[in-house]
Amino acid sequence: MKILIDTYGADEGSQVTIEGALLAKQEIDFTPVFIGNEREIKLTIHDRIHDYEIISTNEYISNDEDPVRAIRRKKDASIVLAYEKSKEEGYDGLISAGSTGAVLSGGLFLAGRIEGIKRACLAAGIPSIDGALTLLMDSGANMDCKAEYLYEFALMGSVFLENVMSLANPKVGLLNVGVEEHKGNKLSKETYRLLKESNLNFVGNVEARDLFAGNVDIIVADGFDGNIALKTAEGVLKLMGDTLKSTIYKSTKNKIAGGLLKKDIKSLASTFSTDKVGGAPLLGVKSYVYKAHGNTNEIAFSNAILGLMDYIQTNTIEKIEGELKNG
Amino acid sequence: MKILIDTYGADEGSQVTIEGALLAKQEIDFTPVFIGNEREIKLTIHDRIHDYEIISTNEYISNDEDPVRAIRRKKDASIVLAYEKSKEEGYDGLISAGSTGAVLSGGLFLAGRIEGIKRACLAAGIPSIDGALTLLMDSGANMDCKAEYLYEFALMGSVFLENVMSLANPKVGLLNVGVEEHKGNKLSKETYRLLKESNLNFVGNVEARDLFAGNVDIIVADGFDGNIALKTAEGVLKLMGDTLKSTIYKSTKNKIAGGLLKKDIKSLASTFSTDKVGGAPLLGVKSYVYKAHGNTNEIAFSNAILGLMDYIQTNTIEKIEGELKNG
Repeated sequence: MKILIDTYGADEGSQVTIEGALLAKQEIDFTPVFIGNEREIKLTIHDRIHDYEIISTNEYISNDEDPVRAIRRKKDASIVLAYEKSKEEGYDGLISAGSTGAVLSGGLFLAGRIEGIKRACLAAGIPSIDGALTLLMDSGANMDCKAEYLYEFALMGSVFLENVMSLANPKVGLLNVGVEEHKGNKLSKETYRLLKESNLNFVGNVEARDLFAGNVDIIVADGFDGNIALKTAEGVLKLMGDTLKSTIYKSTKNKIAGGLLKKDIKSLASTFSTDKVGGAPLLGVKSYVYKAHGNTNEIAFSNAILGLMDYIQTNTIEKIEGELKNG
Repeated sequence: MKILIDTYGADEGSQVTIEGALLAKQEIDFTPVFIGNEREIKLTIHDRIHDYEIISTNEYISNDEDPVRAIRRKKDASIVLAYEKSKEEGYDGLISAGSTGAVLSGGLFLAGRIEGIKRACLAAGIPSIDGALTLLMDSGANMDCKAEYLYEFALMGSVFLENVMSLANPKVGLLNVGVEEHKGNKLSKETYRLLKESNLNFVGNVEARDLFAGNVDIIVADGFDGNIALKTAEGVLKLMGDTLKSTIYKSTKNKIAGGLLKKDIKSLASTFSTDKVGGAPLLGVKSYVYKAHGNTNEIAFSNAILGLMDYIQTNTIEKIEGELKNG
C-alpha cells in the first residue's frame, strides 16, 4: 500500500509526520510517499528505511490563507500534489496535518465528491468513558448545514463504522440542547424528522453534556456546532490537566501525593487522549483522506496512518457509493 | 427589598429554595415572598424568620410542558404568579429554578420586553481560571438568532457588567470556530461586522477552547451554540471530577494521596463551581428576573438571590433603557 504523507502543516514540524510514518511502518508494512522538502525528509529518515518515495516541493498552504483560492492557485503546494497523486493508480490514500480548509477544499475540488453526496465532512473520533469511540460529524468542515447534509453525515458515518470498526447497526444521535423531540433550532428539528424517517438506527437527541457518555456511536451536528463542542471539551480537558499538574507541583506534600497517583492519572489521561485516534477521515470525497490534528505528535500521527489504512482496506468509499445507489 | 421566590422547580425540592433564601437573608436583609405550598413553606421556615410573605399555590410549570402554552393557560402556576406580582409596586424582583422556557416565556408575555430590545437572553456567568467571571449570552434562551440580537446581547451585557460588577468598558468577544475575522457561519460573520462597527469594546472572535481563559468579559453567541458550549463544559467537568474521585477511592495508596491533595482539590473544584454565581439574569425584560440552575443547592440559590439584589439595586434595567434611547 502506498500512503501519501503531507509533511507540511504539523505545528511541531515535518519531523513529527516522518517519525509517525516510521512508527506506523513498524506495525503494518506500507510504502510512505513523503511530500515536502527533500533534504529534510532524507535527513530525518537517515537510512532507517529504504522503501519510500519523495515528492519534492517547498510550497504549502498555511492556516491563514483562504483555502479555496490557495488550492486553485498554488499548484505545487504539498496538499495539492497529494490530491493529484492520490488519483493515480497505485496510490491508496493521503494524510495531512495541515490546514483543515485546504484539506477540505482539496477534497471537493481535486478529488471530487462521491456522487449523490452534497457535503463532505470530518468525522472526529471522540473517546468515551467506556473506552469506545463516538464519531462527531461534522466536526468543523461545513458551516450553515442543511438537514439533508446531516442525514448524509449519519449515513456515511454508519457505513464507516460498520466497515472499518465492524460495528453492526451503529446508533446515531443528534447534538441538541435537550433530549425532547421538540427541542432545538430549525435545523435540529428538521434533522430530527429526517433521521426519524430514515432507515438508520436513530436514537434521538444527545445533549452536549453527554458527549463522552458513549450512549451513541455517531453524533451528527452542523460543523459550527460540532466544532464548538469539540473545542470546548478540548479546552476544559487541557485546563483541568494543567491545573491538576500545577496543584501537584505546588508543594512537597502534593508531589508525594502526585507520585502515588502517577500511574492512575496517566491511564486517565490516556483514556481521554486524542492521540489514540490521531485524525479524522474526510468522508464524502472520492479519495481516501485523513486529516491529522495540527498539534499532532509522532504517536498520534502514526495512529492516524493506521486508521487511514483500515479505512482504505475496507473499501469504505465504494461501500458508501453502493449504499447511495441502493438507498 | 421584597424578592419573589418561586419555590417550585428545583430538582431537590422546595426546601433548597427556602433554605437558600434564609442563607441570603443572613448576608443582606430583605423580605422573601415565597410562592408555593403554604404548609411546606411554613414547615421549612419553622419560625426561624418572621419577616416573610407567602403567595399560596400548588400549581407549577414543569420542564416537559410547552412553556408558551403553559404560561398562558396555568393562571395559578408559581412562575405566572411571580411575574404578575413583580409588576406591583413594592415587589422588586423574582427568582426561579424552574423551567427555563417558562421563565423566558413569562418574561416575554407577562413582564414584557424592554422597548427597543428584540430578544431577551440569559447571561450565564462562567468562571474563568483567573477567578473572574465571563458572561456567556445567550446561554440557551433563543434559538435561530439574528446578528442584531447578538449585538443587543452584547449591549445589555456591557451595561450589566458596568453597573452590577463596576467593570469599565467590558471586553466583548464572539463565540466562533476560529479567531480570524473570516471564520465561521453566516451569523458569526454578520455579527462580527455589526460588533466591529459598534461603540462596544469588541475584541474579536473567541474559540470555544478559550471559554474559561478569561480573555474577555462577555462572549456572545446564538442560544443554541451558547448552550452547546456551556453543557459540553459542564459534562467534561463532571466527568473529570467523577473520574478523579473514583481514582482516589480505588486503593488505599490512592486514598492517602487523595487525603494529601484534599484541600487543593476542594479549592480547585470551587474555582470552577457554578455555585458561586448560582443563576443568570434574564436580560431584556421589564422585570428583574434571575434564573437559578435546576440542580441548584442552598448555597447556589442564596448566591443567586444576592446577585439578583445587586442587579436590582443598580437599576440596570433603567440603564439599559437609557442606553437604548441614547444609542
